[in-house]
Amino acid sequence: MTASSALLESAVDQLATLPGIGRRTAMRLALDLLRREPHDVARFTEAIRRMRDELRRCEVCCNVSDEPRCAICSDPRRDAGLICVVEDIRDVLAIEATRQYHGLYHVLGGVISPMEGIGPDDLNTAELLDRTANGAAREVVLALGGTLEGDTTAFYLNKRLADRNVLVTTIARGISVGANLDQADEVTLGRSIADRKPYEQSIKR
Amino acid sequence: MTASSALLESAVDQLATLPGIGRRTAMRLALDLLRREPHDVARFTEAIRRMRDELRRCEVCCNVSDEPRCAICSDPRRDAGLICVVEDIRDVLAIEATRQYHGLYHVLGGVISPMEGIGPDDLNTAELLDRTANGAAREVVLALGGTLEGDTTAFYLNKRLADRNVLVTTIARGISVGANLDQADEVTLGRSIADRKPYEQSIKR
Repeated sequence: MTASSALLESAVDQLATLPGIGRRTAMRLALDLLRREPHDVARFTEAIRRMRDELRRCEVCCNVSDEPRCAICSDPRRDAGLICVVEDIRDVLAIEATRQYHGLYHVLGGVISPMEGIGPDDLNTAELLDRTANGAAREVVLALGGTLEGDTTAFYLNKRLADRNVLVTTIARGISVGANLDQADEVTLGRSIADRKPYEQSIKR
Repeated sequence: MTASSALLESAVDQLATLPGIGRRTAMRLALDLLRREPHDVARFTEAIRRMRDELRRCEVCCNVSDEPRCAICSDPRRDAGLICVVEDIRDVLAIEATRQYHGLYHVLGGVISPMEGIGPDDLNTAELLDRTANGAAREVVLALGGTLEGDTTAFYLNKRLADRNVLVTTIARGISVGANLDQADEVTLGRSIADRKPYEQSIKR
């Protein structure tokens, strides 16, 4: 696909660098932008540029933040003794949406993946060890994905946190609420049987 | 989904204005941009801004162009007596990719759609009537989509071009090359039977 215009071509090239956006879709997006008013497109590009240039990293939890310290870490109503370790900001958003968690977070910025050459030093692990050093945290919840990389990262963090006086927990794996057993994969179903708990305990929240 | 950052939120809002991009995908795109170097993101936004601000419309065929006259209309090897009318630039790219067409184009910028309030005056129809007024064009090929709107537009243009000394043709509808008959819809199959032609004529190109 070659356009009659180098300017269009260049915009399509750039849009096609986005994950999951092929050249055909990129052309569709470019033509949509082309149909808009110039000030609308300026607002579009400005929002992206400002996000990249001005967004900071929270000095406590490494989450994205407009201020030196993010809104969650600055909130005095949150339980500062509880730290939930997640892969990235999307996980923070997902957990916040449950309204079941009132502690703080720690955003690793990825998971350990030897295949992709990502080791512990490429993640915000040192920051996690730092903030658990002073004894203020009583529990670290590992809320990582149920993948090989997530498990490897959890294993590593649990080991590194061993000399901290902190309880390391991990989120429950099991059958989704509302799901039928025959739709679950064998590993999850096996895990949910192994991790069974008293019925009385399961019905109180 | 609410982010801890107004800057991120704003970028996600803008990315979600793109067609086919929901808020979840927009967040994924924003996080991808956030991981890039600032100068990479500047190149990204700059390409989009320049496309919108600097791209012109070819004064002959209404296609997008970097110059007052587009590369196709400026090419002396193209047959200026043949004008192919298409809906938008993507159709130009698709036809160019076939390497079967060596005439010029006319980009309407849409099709007539009473449902969406798009009439002939919202399209580049006056420009088409202008350029066929001087007798330089001997044939206008209507290469519009096989939709109700495409058919309406073709009907309208054929009527308006009646007083021009020009042959109005339309691209063939039929079974795709390589396709089985039972996979085609009834209307297309019916059309391909009605439009049948001598075998001898179909095998020579």
